Amino acid sequence: MQFKLHHTDQKSDARAGTITTDHGKINTPIFMPVGTIGTVKGVHQAELKEQVKAQIILGNTYHLYLRPGMETMEAAGGLHKFMNWNGPILTDSGGYQVFSLAHRRKITEEGATFASHIDGSRHLFSPESSLGIQRSIGADIVMAFDECPPYPSTREYAKNSMDLTHRWLERCVTFMNETSPKYGHSQALFPIVQGSSFDDLRTKSCEFIASQDQPGNAIGGLSVGEPIEDMYRISKLCCDVLPKDKPRYLMGVGTPANIIECISRGVDMFDCVLPSRNARHGVIYTRNGIMNMKNAKWRTDFSPIDDRPDAAPTSQTHTKAYLAHLFRVGELLGPQLATLHNLAFYLSLVTEAREHIIEGDFADWAASVLPGLERKL
Amino acid sequence: MQFKLHHTDQKSDARAGTITTDHGKINTPIFMPVGTIGTVKGVHQAELKEQVKAQIILGNTYHLYLRPGMETMEAAGGLHKFMNWNGPILTDSGGYQVFSLAHRRKITEEGATFASHIDGSRHLFSPESSLGIQRSIGADIVMAFDECPPYPSTREYAKNSMDLTHRWLERCVTFMNETSPKYGHSQALFPIVQGSSFDDLRTKSCEFIASQDQPGNAIGGLSVGEPIEDMYRISKLCCDVLPKDKPRYLMGVGTPANIIECISRGVDMFDCVLPSRNARHGVIYTRNGIMNMKNAKWRTDFSPIDDRPDAAPTSQTHTKAYLAHLFRVGELLGPQLATLHNLAFYLSLVTEAREHIIEGDFADWAASVLPGLERKL
Repeated sequence: MQFKLHHTDQKSDARAGTITTDHGKINTPIFMPVGTIGTVKGVHQAELKEQVKAQIILGNTYHLYLRPGMETMEAAGGLHKFMNWNGPILTDSGGYQVFSLAHRRKITEEGATFASHIDGSRHLFSPESSLGIQRSIGADIVMAFDECPPYPSTREYAKNSMDLTHRWLERCVTFMNETSPKYGHSQALFPIVQGSSFDDLRTKSCEFIASQDQPGNAIGGLSVGEPIEDMYRISKLCCDVLPKDKPRYLMGVGTPANIIECISRGVDMFDCVLPSRNARHGVIYTRNGIMNMKNAKWRTDFSPIDDRPDAAPTSQTHTKAYLAHLFRVGELLGPQLATLHNLAFYLSLVTEAREHIIEGDFADWAASVLPGLERKL
Repeated sequence: MQFKLHHTDQKSDARAGTITTDHGKINTPIFMPVGTIGTVKGVHQAELKEQVKAQIILGNTYHLYLRPGMETMEAAGGLHKFMNWNGPILTDSGGYQVFSLAHRRKITEEGATFASHIDGSRHLFSPESSLGIQRSIGADIVMAFDECPPYPSTREYAKNSMDLTHRWLERCVTFMNETSPKYGHSQALFPIVQGSSFDDLRTKSCEFIASQDQPGNAIGGLSVGEPIEDMYRISKLCCDVLPKDKPRYLMGVGTPANIIECISRGVDMFDCVLPSRNARHGVIYTRNGIMNMKNAKWRTDFSPIDDRPDAAPTSQTHTKAYLAHLFRVGELLGPQLATLHNLAFYLSLVTEAREHIIEGDFADWAASVLPGLERKL
């Protein structure tokens, strides 16, 4: 994996770059749609490529490990072939789902034991097993196995958790060095900064993570309930310490406005279930504001869902009234159209942000779009 | 609406023709996907056109009348514009749903009163109101308001019901003659033959229906629980009486094998929820047989869902293992892929049937494909 930094904004820390993987290039800043169990919910792979214009998607190690399982995954030749997606893929380490979704979890120096949320079966995720699973999945970018402390955490908990994450990282790096990819393409490890909302811990974690000299770095443990100011402050603090010549991935963030704010603080990569999950509940993001399609007022609005030329094609050809009707009657096509819309919207937003970074007017552009992004329609 | 009969098979009653509507041509024999409430469940309109290759779709008057309602429908400019489908549309009369779905229904000479299955509100469907609603929906082909007797029915019930359907038909014809289309394109009325499983009633009904000299004719009251032999016998009996120069539409039929059998008996048009409803439950139709994707054995079958060049594109690029995985984990993309597959399969089947009718070897071709169509895999 290679990263080339093309431009850094004069009035902010926003950056435009390009990541090159064996499955293609990714222009940063980028938003990565979440394809939890080998599918971005409700979206065909061809639509992801041609309509959403996704350049990289996420898979969740925890979910894929449980189903279809690694025997099937390896027999398929990895996730790219299993789901028929030939673009770049990033997998998380499974740690976050163990802490948020699994039952009876217990953390030890070795790793985390847990019971499957599906059948209660017991499993162990460790730095080695998580990366071993990610080798079997075959993502282009794999994430270090970390502990994401809950918010709020005491300083002591956050410090101990961070130290454990650092020790686990060293084992991740060793495992990656001692093993090879399974499908002929390379896999890049991204370590994850932790440290909760404590600035000194975050600084220390960034320095440690940077010292591992991996191809990219991630900021974890944010968007877990902390005040928005904390998220912005910690993001900036981390970007100021993390190396400039490597991409920075802020995990699990966020709203369109969050993404613009964090781009301006130096983040290059984002993922979040928000646009797809909210879409399935009828919430639509536009440049003019946020619409809840379950609101009766849209049922007689025969204007396009979004008439911008960079909106999803189906958002330009279908009306708000039609989409509101589909949600009202509970038809599958409602979530399908809404998900396509929101994901295409997120991608068009980061694409335009990148253009303005390159053109040198990102800060002014960001200030001009932020009010619309947060408006309720 | 015009119908041109091109070929009739020598060894069977199979016919190849073309229906011309103001929204385009329909090559017969044809299968019409069901788009109940303004959407074929789980399928984008562009997919219907480009991947399923649907030439005409159905809308259900009962459902569309209740939601979005005719005020919204007229404000949208009719169903074509409301759902953004510019091909031909056929609407049923609403009668079947009143008898199968609505509550507290009561039939009188005037029509049928019923309570909505959604909110219990009371409504009346009559020949005039059904056709009035179908004028507001704006389908290219509209169906006469009929009573579909349950199976089994006594001869007396079937006779009285048929006579009522005939009297209602005369009111439908009068209403159509005295009113005009609302959106500038023409609407053709298809009367419906009834008479349950009684051959003499069916013959009489066909003669009466034919005497009304409408642009096409439909056979109703089949596929309601009668033995398959009855369905085939009555279909043939009706086709033998109904005029040759008009299309014949067998309502609500059926499996792939049913469709081939009824094409050979002279039917030109079919609709059925079977391919789309069964798809959502993981049942996939192929030339080699029927697969239930919830069966564990498919989870490790990495061959394409269907590698025939006329299969849905996604069936050629995705594996059975992937589709089985999607159904196992309950992902939306499973029903989406399965629905695309089954509808494209039905359309490819009638398209190939038509080619063989034109080439003159339909009967041999039908005999060669029928065993595969009914096999369980």
